[in-house]
Amino acid sequence: MSKPYVRLDKSQAAVLLVDHQSGLLSLVRDIEPDRFKNNVLALADLAKYFKLPTILTTSFESGPNGPLVPELKELFPDAPYIARPGNINAWDNEDFVKAVKATGKKQLIIAGVVTEVCVAFPALSALEEGFDVFVVADASGTFNEVTRDAAWRRMEAAGAQLMTWFGVACELHRDWRNDIEGLAALFSAHIPDYRNLITSYSTLTAAK
Amino acid sequence: MSKPYVRLDKSQAAVLLVDHQSGLLSLVRDIEPDRFKNNVLALADLAKYFKLPTILTTSFESGPNGPLVPELKELFPDAPYIARPGNINAWDNEDFVKAVKATGKKQLIIAGVVTEVCVAFPALSALEEGFDVFVVADASGTFNEVTRDAAWRRMEAAGAQLMTWFGVACELHRDWRNDIEGLAALFSAHIPDYRNLITSYSTLTAAK
Amino acid sequence: MSKPYVRLDKSQAAVLLVDHQSGLLSLVRDIEPDRFKNNVLALADLAKYFKLPTILTTSFESGPNGPLVPELKELFPDAPYIARPGNINAWDNEDFVKAVKATGKKQLIIAGVVTEVCVAFPALSALEEGFDVFVVADASGTFNEVTRDAAWRRMEAAGAQLMTWFGVACELHRDWRNDIEGLAALFSAHIPDYRNLITSYSTLTAAK
Amino acid sequence: MSKPYVRLDKSQAAVLLVDHQSGLLSLVRDIEPDRFKNNVLALADLAKYFKLPTILTTSFESGPNGPLVPELKELFPDAPYIARPGNINAWDNEDFVKAVKATGKKQLIIAGVVTEVCVAFPALSALEEGFDVFVVADASGTFNEVTRDAAWRRMEAAGAQLMTWFGVACELHRDWRNDIEGLAALFSAHIPDYRNLITSYSTLTAAK
Amino acid sequence: MSKPYVRLDKSQAAVLLVDHQSGLLSLVRDIEPDRFKNNVLALADLAKYFKLPTILTTSFESGPNGPLVPELKELFPDAPYIARPGNINAWDNEDFVKAVKATGKKQLIIAGVVTEVCVAFPALSALEEGFDVFVVADASGTFNEVTRDAAWRRMEAAGAQLMTWFGVACELHRDWRNDIEGLAALFSAHIPDYRNLITSYSTLTAAK
Amino acid sequence: MSKPYVRLDKSQAAVLLVDHQSGLLSLVRDIEPDRFKNNVLALADLAKYFKLPTILTTSFESGPNGPLVPELKELFPDAPYIARPGNINAWDNEDFVKAVKATGKKQLIIAGVVTEVCVAFPALSALEEGFDVFVVADASGTFNEVTRDAAWRRMEAAGAQLMTWFGVACELHRDWRNDIEGLAALFSAHIPDYRNLITSYSTLTAAK
Amino acid sequence: MSKPYVRLDKSQAAVLLVDHQSGLLSLVRDIEPDRFKNNVLALADLAKYFKLPTILTTSFESGPNGPLVPELKELFPDAPYIARPGNINAWDNEDFVKAVKATGKKQLIIAGVVTEVCVAFPALSALEEGFDVFVVADASGTFNEVTRDAAWRRMEAAGAQLMTWFGVACELHRDWRNDIEGLAALFSAHIPDYRNLITSYSTLTAAK
Amino acid sequence: MSKPYVRLDKSQAAVLLVDHQSGLLSLVRDIEPDRFKNNVLALADLAKYFKLPTILTTSFESGPNGPLVPELKELFPDAPYIARPGNINAWDNEDFVKAVKATGKKQLIIAGVVTEVCVAFPALSALEEGFDVFVVADASGTFNEVTRDAAWRRMEAAGAQLMTWFGVACELHRDWRNDIEGLAALFSAHIPDYRNLITSYSTLTAAK
Repeated sequence: MSKPYVRLDKSQAAVLLVDHQSGLLSLVRDIEPDRFKNNVLALADLAKYFKLPTILTTSFESGPNGPLVPELKELFPDAPYIARPGNINAWDNEDFVKAVKATGKKQLIIAGVVTEVCVAFPALSALEEGFDVFVVADASGTFNEVTRDAAWRRMEAAGAQLMTWFGVACELHRDWRNDIEGLAALFSAHIPDYRNLITSYSTLTAAK
Repeated sequence: MSKPYVRLDKSQAAVLLVDHQSGLLSLVRDIEPDRFKNNVLALADLAKYFKLPTILTTSFESGPNGPLVPELKELFPDAPYIARPGNINAWDNEDFVKAVKATGKKQLIIAGVVTEVCVAFPALSALEEGFDVFVVADASGTFNEVTRDAAWRRMEAAGAQLMTWFGVACELHRDWRNDIEGLAALFSAHIPDYRNLITSYSTLTAAK
Repeated sequence: MSKPYVRLDKSQAAVLLVDHQSGLLSLVRDIEPDRFKNNVLALADLAKYFKLPTILTTSFESGPNGPLVPELKELFPDAPYIARPGNINAWDNEDFVKAVKATGKKQLIIAGVVTEVCVAFPALSALEEGFDVFVVADASGTFNEVTRDAAWRRMEAAGAQLMTWFGVACELHRDWRNDIEGLAALFSAHIPDYRNLITSYSTLTAAK
Repeated sequence: MSKPYVRLDKSQAAVLLVDHQSGLLSLVRDIEPDRFKNNVLALADLAKYFKLPTILTTSFESGPNGPLVPELKELFPDAPYIARPGNINAWDNEDFVKAVKATGKKQLIIAGVVTEVCVAFPALSALEEGFDVFVVADASGTFNEVTRDAAWRRMEAAGAQLMTWFGVACELHRDWRNDIEGLAALFSAHIPDYRNLITSYSTLTAAK
Repeated sequence: MSKPYVRLDKSQAAVLLVDHQSGLLSLVRDIEPDRFKNNVLALADLAKYFKLPTILTTSFESGPNGPLVPELKELFPDAPYIARPGNINAWDNEDFVKAVKATGKKQLIIAGVVTEVCVAFPALSALEEGFDVFVVADASGTFNEVTRDAAWRRMEAAGAQLMTWFGVACELHRDWRNDIEGLAALFSAHIPDYRNLITSYSTLTAAK
Repeated sequence: MSKPYVRLDKSQAAVLLVDHQSGLLSLVRDIEPDRFKNNVLALADLAKYFKLPTILTTSFESGPNGPLVPELKELFPDAPYIARPGNINAWDNEDFVKAVKATGKKQLIIAGVVTEVCVAFPALSALEEGFDVFVVADASGTFNEVTRDAAWRRMEAAGAQLMTWFGVACELHRDWRNDIEGLAALFSAHIPDYRNLITSYSTLTAAK
Repeated sequence: MSKPYVRLDKSQAAVLLVDHQSGLLSLVRDIEPDRFKNNVLALADLAKYFKLPTILTTSFESGPNGPLVPELKELFPDAPYIARPGNINAWDNEDFVKAVKATGKKQLIIAGVVTEVCVAFPALSALEEGFDVFVVADASGTFNEVTRDAAWRRMEAAGAQLMTWFGVACELHRDWRNDIEGLAALFSAHIPDYRNLITSYSTLTAAK
Repeated sequence: MSKPYVRLDKSQAAVLLVDHQSGLLSLVRDIEPDRFKNNVLALADLAKYFKLPTILTTSFESGPNGPLVPELKELFPDAPYIARPGNINAWDNEDFVKAVKATGKKQLIIAGVVTEVCVAFPALSALEEGFDVFVVADASGTFNEVTRDAAWRRMEAAGAQLMTWFGVACELHRDWRNDIEGLAALFSAHIPDYRNLITSYSTLTAAK
């Protein structure tokens, strides 16, 4: 009766980054800005590192919601970029769904702003169409904890798997031996505690 | 095995505001009074904006529970108003259930005070009768977080969808192009951060 | 697929108070002692008020766990009182199960110390035997929030309904008209905010 | 050795509102936006109510800091309004200091965004020149609690008195008999709990 | 340069209970209602136990602020009771100050609602007149932690000593041998953890 | 439709301790280090006390993750010890799975660092193969509460039971009479409050 | 006008451990029991390590307050041990003051339970007599944060220096070269994070 | 009687960065690692930007404390770098004091790890010698909030001014017109919310 273990597989996964826009980010208050920025960039970096097809989308860039944050544009210059003219649920936008389906992937890793709308709506729609949905909880943000928790529960009840970027990276990588330096660099760039471990370790081993 | 995505539809939804009374509100301590007042009025404003049939109900207005807060009375002068003489669960009151059924809507958006009683009891009863129930978590309040969390879990296990007012508005609206100014005005009135975005944006574009 | 609404009914419910002992209470740190004492006594008072069969049980009273708190003994002088000589799960004690079954009730309202053991174990056992189990979350206590949350999730997954004493009282009472003064007295004794509402109300109406 | 009690006096006090700008407000995260907006407007309303000379100032309105929030402009159409071209400490701006001195008041009530800069700097400068400074803690905001606490300590050590808007209003009013309705209206507009008390009270007394 | 140790002395102390009224209590949100009620009654009980002269005062009892909570009236039927017709600072009321001075005591133990007004204003005034002021922090309440902390800092800077009811009781009692049973009864009535210690202890020693 | 009660049984349970390494422990920030160390050692001690087969595993001991903490090595000198050369999910390591299966146990008690990876991955894999999985929530740690909660939800949805070490010990022991002193010693070593109860109790009974 | 830097000096300091008794410890709720136990033992270990004269005192050991925790008795078998028959302020007990003065030390390092009474009272008295007082904040505990903060402020205003055990150890030691291994052992025993650093470091350097 | 306003002046200030080492950083738990890393680098960047003489110091780099984090080394390749062989208080190290005095500056801006030792000890020593000390609270870290608060109070009582990096930057800069782009770049690099404001602003003005 429990959910089966659907395991992230780098050959089957795509990443959807929804509405990380400079205006909308000022609404995010369930997570500190420093940590949130780091988590979003960590997710973007891992998408790049694992060469996952990545889709960017925004709503109303020309209005008060503001443009996509420049870091994401720079990281994915060739990614499909759907600037939605009005659909709140990205899944209501045909171009977006086409782009998703064009990846040929069945596992969707989703993050965005704000959680209960820009993440939850397409997550629920994708689940309805049979995709496996992995919500990156710590690269998604919203007004406050009450809103976030309600959004998590709704997505979870519909079958989404809640993860955070570190777990996504580890589940995709499977085995350190696939590339020790690459994964360590990813962690070092986005986890200060891990970077400190590496600094201490390298210094000591270099000193031998 | 997961819950299907039942999506709010403005042609199928009604709003039930249960026991937002001046006395009972002093019991609410799981949310700050300023935020709670704002959330309740935001929900009321969106009900109005989307022209959703809305039903008001109170328990024991003449006693220490106090009268319905005046703002709600003023916003919905013609709405069905069921002052229950004694039923704690509004759904035990025939007039209330009749009023709900008279709307002809299948999707019930519920908020009230206190969450585990005035919201949870009619929510559970409505679910039992086959309605789709959407609990507006941030326009409902109760004694403390423990009580709130237990109430959420009970409703969720019975099939209710947990949302907050912003998500409700977005899911009902579907597409900004249906009415940009109207939705922006709703957000501006109830989300200070959004209002600030609009202020900055309007000033800059006006300055061109 | 959701849980049906099993509604508390005063003709079908019994109350189980498990291990509220003077020593064990010093382990409770997920709730302030003042609030916890009040909640436990509120649950006891409502059991009395609704004339629900009530069963008391303790573990190792003669050792460091200490005796049952005197207030509970005094409130229920004639209740079955099972001082378990060693069983940690009260349901492993035949006398306890016999006492529960002798009530002839199908709905069990359980509270105790500590939540993940003294409440969860008999709750899980009772669910296994087909009882409807209502856990009174705010009259149960344990070491910390992590422990409490894990215990709640385990019981909930097994089918228990999570409630708090106020919701239990309201669901049992159904209609204020059954006895306004009695219920108001119960609330006034255990909810300072409600008592204040009554004080203000009575003073003003008396002044007419 | 202790500080003497310098008591706010409506004939001696002026209000300085510093940098409540639509852009800068997105930096404020030590207080919820709903509460903060309410507190700032409450302070503005009390300045108006007590007819205190009020001075508005902003920094870089034409840049990303954004314009003064429109509500403040509207409330004080004739107040001195010093749009500082560059000085971070408002007290470094001659026009601002002139405006302050032109009020002829010795007691300065200050609030602004962000606390440790826009409030603390002019507060420290004004103290240095012998003014009595009253910081309105809940109408000032900043990045986080650590920053806020450090700012409070620095101002307090320099002799500022820390207050909140409600205390300011009460200390200025001195005696309810000076104007019951006016003060009640101010509280009712900005304290939901107080408004509820008045609603219950008025309903009951009207019912006599 | 530090403050000298002014030690509470039961022959020199009086207690001032300011504005613990049924309406105003709904404004208190920096402390749980159960704990706050317990703390206020603990302070009242200790005033009684140590036979300290106690003065009650209220503001606008006939309006929305509501009457003094009945427990305090009952505990001090013969205490001076100054129902202030309008003064917000009790010290501005001549009858109140007369009553205070009539006690002939130099040490004033003050608690009330709300902290930054009803407690802080008379505390500051009394300090100005040379009294030693002891603020009972946990029997005083206000809107939120920010307001409370600002009020504490203001009083502390003016020379008040911040205490809580337990410390007041201990400093007044000096030596358990003065009356073991009386002090134990006071603690047992208001500290559940202490009551549990006594229950365990008495049971074990009785069992010998 | 609810999960059946799968009860821990000391003849059917094994313990898996995953990646409690000196470097990785610096990543754990959802629990205080003092409490976490105590919880991990308590779990280890109970594994020993109940003679449960215990398996140790680590990832990359020679790198920055650091070696297994020495206490665990010392407690289980003869336990299978799988130093994984690269598999992130321990269940991907054949030696580990063989060691687990060699125990012949069906109930797996798992704890580790970090929760969403080192605990969740093998827990999900073991559930997939039909094992009963009991996650020891308070002997597992990770970056923050958001990450922990997401990990708990994912494991719970897949059928894991969430417990804490104290509940595990109690469910395994079943009856105090099996060995009073042994269990009391375990609690006394790891629960300061319980140790205090025993100290008070022993002193008083020794004094008879 | 600021306080001069009185620096702890191992030749001038004595340690006073006040009322760490098995019953009273159940009152401590401003700090987790695991952390508190560790901090108290860390302070005791450092007293031993630096060979500071140490004085133990208790109140009413034979009553519900319970005996001194056995660990402290064992660590200081020859220390002056003043079991006070009734004085709440240890400084009111002649034997205690004599023992303190007999050490010939001017710097008193004090910790105890509960902070606002057993620590604050003798701290204030000792300051009055000209001693330098260092309160070990994290080896002292009380009912809740409000009580603790009020106690800290009172002691601080009277001239006490607030420290924690780690700072005390560092200020006494002055220079690692005085004894690297001894200090490292002290930290390793009481700071899990530090122990982990040492484990990683030793393993790597041993591997060379 | 209050402290005079000693204002940071870029011609009179030097920065001391004390013991930001890869091992010691794992002890810091009063602030999230992402935020802390950002704050420390922000302080370093501002030191660089304002060309303040900066001094680096470490304790026991070759042991478990680990090396200085590489970012700081890289930012200040030519700064005095005092690797202390054993002195815990950097001020006890003659080379360090010489380096400080060699800057010829009177205002010392200090940050480090851990707050109550590596920051507080040299801060107290420098105050004793007549320096003006500015503690950068958010670029200093320690074990927990209790330790941090006690350290702040001790330094504050001795005359230190508590600031955070943003306030330091603003107080040094004085006037935006001195260099708009430079300051904006500093803020943009370290304050995600500010960066978002600039992104929105630039996009809109560029679009004109």
